[in-house]
Amino acid sequence: MDYPSAPPIRAAIQERLELGLGYPHWDDAPDLNPLREVFTERMRRQGVAFAPADVRVFTELIQALQVVLHLGTEPGDTVALHTPAYPPFLDTISAMGRRLRPIPMIDTPDGWTFDTERLAAAPPAALILVNPHNPTGRAFTRDELAGLAEIADRHGVLVISDEIHSDLAYEPHRHIPFATLHERTVTLTSASKAFNLAGLRCSVAHVGDARIREALAAMPPQFFGEVSSLSVVATVAAWKEGGAWLAEARETLARNRDLVKDSLPPGVRHHSPEATYLAWLDCRELGLGDDPAAHFLADGKIMLSNGPAFGPGGEGFARLNFATSGPILTDVLQRLNDSASRAT
Amino acid sequence: MDYPSAPPIRAAIQERLELGLGYPHWDDAPDLNPLREVFTERMRRQGVAFAPADVRVFTELIQALQVVLHLGTEPGDTVALHTPAYPPFLDTISAMGRRLRPIPMIDTPDGWTFDTERLAAAPPAALILVNPHNPTGRAFTRDELAGLAEIADRHGVLVISDEIHSDLAYEPHRHIPFATLHERTVTLTSASKAFNLAGLRCSVAHVGDARIREALAAMPPQFFGEVSSLSVVATVAAWKEGGAWLAEARETLARNRDLVKDSLPPGVRHHSPEATYLAWLDCRELGLGDDPAAHFLADGKIMLSNGPAFGPGGEGFARLNFATSGPILTDVLQRLNDSASRAT
Repeated sequence: MDYPSAPPIRAAIQERLELGLGYPHWDDAPDLNPLREVFTERMRRQGVAFAPADVRVFTELIQALQVVLHLGTEPGDTVALHTPAYPPFLDTISAMGRRLRPIPMIDTPDGWTFDTERLAAAPPAALILVNPHNPTGRAFTRDELAGLAEIADRHGVLVISDEIHSDLAYEPHRHIPFATLHERTVTLTSASKAFNLAGLRCSVAHVGDARIREALAAMPPQFFGEVSSLSVVATVAAWKEGGAWLAEARETLARNRDLVKDSLPPGVRHHSPEATYLAWLDCRELGLGDDPAAHFLADGKIMLSNGPAFGPGGEGFARLNFATSGPILTDVLQRLNDSASRAT
Repeated sequence: MDYPSAPPIRAAIQERLELGLGYPHWDDAPDLNPLREVFTERMRRQGVAFAPADVRVFTELIQALQVVLHLGTEPGDTVALHTPAYPPFLDTISAMGRRLRPIPMIDTPDGWTFDTERLAAAPPAALILVNPHNPTGRAFTRDELAGLAEIADRHGVLVISDEIHSDLAYEPHRHIPFATLHERTVTLTSASKAFNLAGLRCSVAHVGDARIREALAAMPPQFFGEVSSLSVVATVAAWKEGGAWLAEARETLARNRDLVKDSLPPGVRHHSPEATYLAWLDCRELGLGDDPAAHFLADGKIMLSNGPAFGPGGEGFARLNFATSGPILTDVLQRLNDSASRAT
């Protein structure tokens, strides 16, 4: 994201800086960490009642994912992931010695959706669900999610639900927390995407799985690291006072999304995203090979993400991040058009 | 510590806030993290040549200790610790299922020192060395440390050296990094004590043990968490530009140390600390039982640390933190005198 931090976040950091950077009052007592209450209150408004005691703070969402996989699965276990998928998740599964089961998303006229039959045919030990979905921008419907929940219930699949883009669903689409449909879910989120705070290294997990909760509680409280007091107060400010900034950011992003939709070159197709600031561009008609992003970088001096890095089904695709200003995005889209026309 | 952050630290945080809180340029590439070079350069000036590639960043020193114990010892292994000892270290050893071997420090007319015979008599799997020492305030001499290094060499003891107070040694005492005497040492430190930055959760480890380095490298890079970009820039500023502030803080602390020495009540004895802002007070003559701090809190409304929490040998002692302003310390010492006189 190309936007400066929200004023309430900057004010919270300034205020903490004045108070001092020594031990925060919550220190090693996780139940005093204000994030737990602020997060559960936020989720209550999304229709799910989480107990603050089941919330655990991590430095990054991907760390939380790795720890949950470490405690909830064994090396050699199968972990399913809908592809195309966020590349660090693919890397994590292989780095941790788990077996990836890619479940290719299905491209329908109404957008990308799950292949539930394929998932049910050989249920994995765990499923990493990404909702809203990166890179396709889907905000899955209750019916779609209910289909997954039914499989997870029936086969005892551990579902780890990455909901980091949940604040970035565009009207009339709504984010539906998977935990509303499947209680054992491990829900992961962070203010890092919607509020552009990735550098602060602060994420939260609601651990709906009792065995993983117990395994976490058996480790010394600092073993997986602790989050900076500045990051905690910044995330609290984002979630409690960042609503106006977020609404404005979402409006800007929705305009950008429409600008992308109206300005794609001939031969580049996509389903306009329902959430996230990412557009998953099907460039196969341009005949640029597996990695059209490499062409756009060399030829148009614009950097999109490499499609094949998103796993099976990424060949011929590129991911465009449109969380920038109107003039920059206009320039990017002009270059994309010029570069595409030189390709055909 | 009761002091506001050093101006260069505040400036570095402000500057980063202006730049933005998104992904830092080093992100998941640890070799781009500026802390590694800044730390190794700082250690070079202390006479030890660390390779940046062997430095690992953690959120807290105690996290680093736990991870190193996890990877370098087995449950049931013996871990030695000189007592009295920092209570979270005692808690860590028991929480991790390692067996504590307390090695009581010896009280000599010249100060507290190691009982090397006791250590050598039954060598542990690991030794947690705290130098400068908390709570006694010793900055151990080269000869004392060489005695430990000889035992570690001879018996293959993994030494984890907590050097978090190394910037707070008072003239003519000098901090001697244990790694100058024993290459396999795991050296742990942080700017958190000398610069009052504990809330930022940022520490570094130089891992001199190849097996632990390899075990760390086998985990996904985010597994043990990552440090906030604000914490990284703050620590870099402390170590590169904080010298003048630190020199002044050390002068203030040295004056406070002398004020403590000159103002202790009759019946309270101590060895004036050579480093740290901690005074380990022997209150046994006052006849206040195991925990004199409880008396001082109830009777004098001053909060010292509970001696018995520091393990064997802590009975009848209390730890005084003198990192505050002159007027507050004067008031504390007056109350300590009044409360001690009411006890006898």
